[in-house]
Amino acid sequence: MANNTVTAPKGFLAAGLHCGVKKSGKFDLALLACPTGAKAAAVFTTNKVVSAAVQVCKKHVKSASISAVVVNSGNANTCTGKRGLANAVKMCAETAKQIEIGPHNVLIASTGIIGKHLPIKKITAGISKAAAKLSASSKAGLDFAEAIMTTDTKPKQAVRRFEISGAKVTIAGAVKGAGMIAPNMATTLCFITTDAAITQPLLAKALKAAIGNSLNRLTVDGHQSTNDTAIILASGLAGNRPIVSQCPRYKRFANALAEVCGDLARQMVLDAEGATRMFKVVVKGAATKADAARAARAIADYPLVKCAVNGGDPNWGRIICAVGSAGVKLNPNKLACKLGPITVFKNGTPRKFDAKKASKVVSQTEHTITVDLGAGKASDFCYGCDLSAEYVRINADYHT
Amino acid sequence: MANNTVTAPKGFLAAGLHCGVKKSGKFDLALLACPTGAKAAAVFTTNKVVSAAVQVCKKHVKSASISAVVVNSGNANTCTGKRGLANAVKMCAETAKQIEIGPHNVLIASTGIIGKHLPIKKITAGISKAAAKLSASSKAGLDFAEAIMTTDTKPKQAVRRFEISGAKVTIAGAVKGAGMIAPNMATTLCFITTDAAITQPLLAKALKAAIGNSLNRLTVDGHQSTNDTAIILASGLAGNRPIVSQCPRYKRFANALAEVCGDLARQMVLDAEGATRMFKVVVKGAATKADAARAARAIADYPLVKCAVNGGDPNWGRIICAVGSAGVKLNPNKLACKLGPITVFKNGTPRKFDAKKASKVVSQTEHTITVDLGAGKASDFCYGCDLSAEYVRINADYHT
Repeated sequence: MANNTVTAPKGFLAAGLHCGVKKSGKFDLALLACPTGAKAAAVFTTNKVVSAAVQVCKKHVKSASISAVVVNSGNANTCTGKRGLANAVKMCAETAKQIEIGPHNVLIASTGIIGKHLPIKKITAGISKAAAKLSASSKAGLDFAEAIMTTDTKPKQAVRRFEISGAKVTIAGAVKGAGMIAPNMATTLCFITTDAAITQPLLAKALKAAIGNSLNRLTVDGHQSTNDTAIILASGLAGNRPIVSQCPRYKRFANALAEVCGDLARQMVLDAEGATRMFKVVVKGAATKADAARAARAIADYPLVKCAVNGGDPNWGRIICAVGSAGVKLNPNKLACKLGPITVFKNGTPRKFDAKKASKVVSQTEHTITVDLGAGKASDFCYGCDLSAEYVRINADYHT
Repeated sequence: MANNTVTAPKGFLAAGLHCGVKKSGKFDLALLACPTGAKAAAVFTTNKVVSAAVQVCKKHVKSASISAVVVNSGNANTCTGKRGLANAVKMCAETAKQIEIGPHNVLIASTGIIGKHLPIKKITAGISKAAAKLSASSKAGLDFAEAIMTTDTKPKQAVRRFEISGAKVTIAGAVKGAGMIAPNMATTLCFITTDAAITQPLLAKALKAAIGNSLNRLTVDGHQSTNDTAIILASGLAGNRPIVSQCPRYKRFANALAEVCGDLARQMVLDAEGATRMFKVVVKGAATKADAARAARAIADYPLVKCAVNGGDPNWGRIICAVGSAGVKLNPNKLACKLGPITVFKNGTPRKFDAKKASKVVSQTEHTITVDLGAGKASDFCYGCDLSAEYVRINADYHT
């Protein structure tokens, strides 16, 4: 069977194991290595409170070459002051020691509970064990994907294989937790590997674009966590003619990367805590792209819309209410709304529609809500998921 | 027993009855009258999509004298185009005809489902019956309070009696639905009566201030509905020395009005759909008052905080996560958080605390979350309620 994990691209090794952060015994330490050194780029949370891991990772990612990424799950190492920062530094130092590289060649991420100190001795012991286990097998890649999980119900991975200048190129990724919203957990982590030969600035540009249209279009609870991190490493071992400009080769790479991120984003939203279905919100007729994005987010984040989707209810009044309070320019006399292909509201007036058919649309695993603001020509979109009683149970019954 | 309804102040009559908008047979038409004519002021939703009632009411409230307020519940008359506007005009015309005044002396409000046309014949017939029933009794006032309800579980009323220049002055109010968030319902309506003699500009000023610190500080789902309306009518029959400047008499009136609105706001949030407890969020140490207000709202609207309160969980990490993503200025090294009197986080570092005691605080019917941003001297506050599985059930299982 083909290797569809982060070890699929040439030059990558991985490992995952239980070191003792999680009481459940589940995997909680993940290690990714690129012995030949990789070009790296990353995107981080915009939350003003960030984990110690994010603070350290932001510095290290400026290094010319990255050889390893170390990740722990079960503890976010956030709101932990100076001791937290020292622990993140220790994690990088231990990884560097094991792989015989410099600490600044190690990237780091943490995810889990906020405000508790890391059991650092267990983690450094785990890093030593993980380094000994590093392997290019698909089993090792899957172990990595499992070790970054928190309340995720399954590992989420995606891969794309394509050709550039006659050479086979692979991009693979693993993400955790669009559950966002795990009990007290800090949330999205995304790790992507590729063997494409590409310059660092173009790698960063392609990552930013891909994340902007995928992970950054997801909204489960409307808030970015303190730990959100997306990292891409490029080993350059595919043998392709290096991508050094925004030529057709770059476009092929960027498109494949966008596909990988889009695939991961869909898996994340469908695995969101308590989520039973997802929806795409398309807003057109906006005065500006920013207005369109804001309106789309307002709809996807509106608890009443999320509840209606949960109940399979074609309740378009709630969609219009969300749009009206989003603070965007709109023309009430030109406003329109579609559920899937069914027009339910047009020119500010309700349209007769088959409620049973509309309910069927809303009850699908995935449907599209389209809103026309009647105020311009800009458009944008985002993805949301339903809000279920199960979500509340998960997040209320858990106790710190 | 004292009359504690909107008919308590001198000069007001009320009525409430079932005219046929609601299938349940519950009251759905409310009428308030001030035969001698009242000075009036109002505050409306900032949603860009507003009901036909709001459009008409905004015009009529500019009249020098208001003699009646007509309200229907069960149908918001929103997103109903020209026909909806014509129906709102008809409701005022019928009320004016019955009470023998001009249509512009009638204020109007609607609340209920969005996107359906009013059964206007049933409503005009109901107005005629309500006009015949108008009474100054406390029974009539209670009927009014019940007829404006949608998914509210009980009528919500408040009254204050005080003296101005030796004359007894009364302020009374009735509100509906901080359930916000009724199934497809447009939400907050607030009607206040007083017999104080006061100029219109000062009446408007006092209302704006009182609503700003009460109803506008509530957040159940973070969105203003399409129909939100607060109206105050002053008959001037109390016999007090008229309030014509911002003198101590004005302050006494404004304080009493603020108390009435605060009382109504508390009742609303505790009667929110599925809500089991409420909380106050106080944000201090902000760079600006706007930052403080924004951070407070971000905390009160954050689903994970609302779920934690539902579960009685002192989960302060979620509070800090919400603050960090609110887009306000903050100093991570000076950030602090208190649950009731218990400091759980200070100077960016977690503090040891008794988890059982903290859980007791969060499990109260009402508690205060205090956050210090460490970025300045401004402060602000707001009220929120918990998010329960029951809320989701109410809003998912309802079908349009």
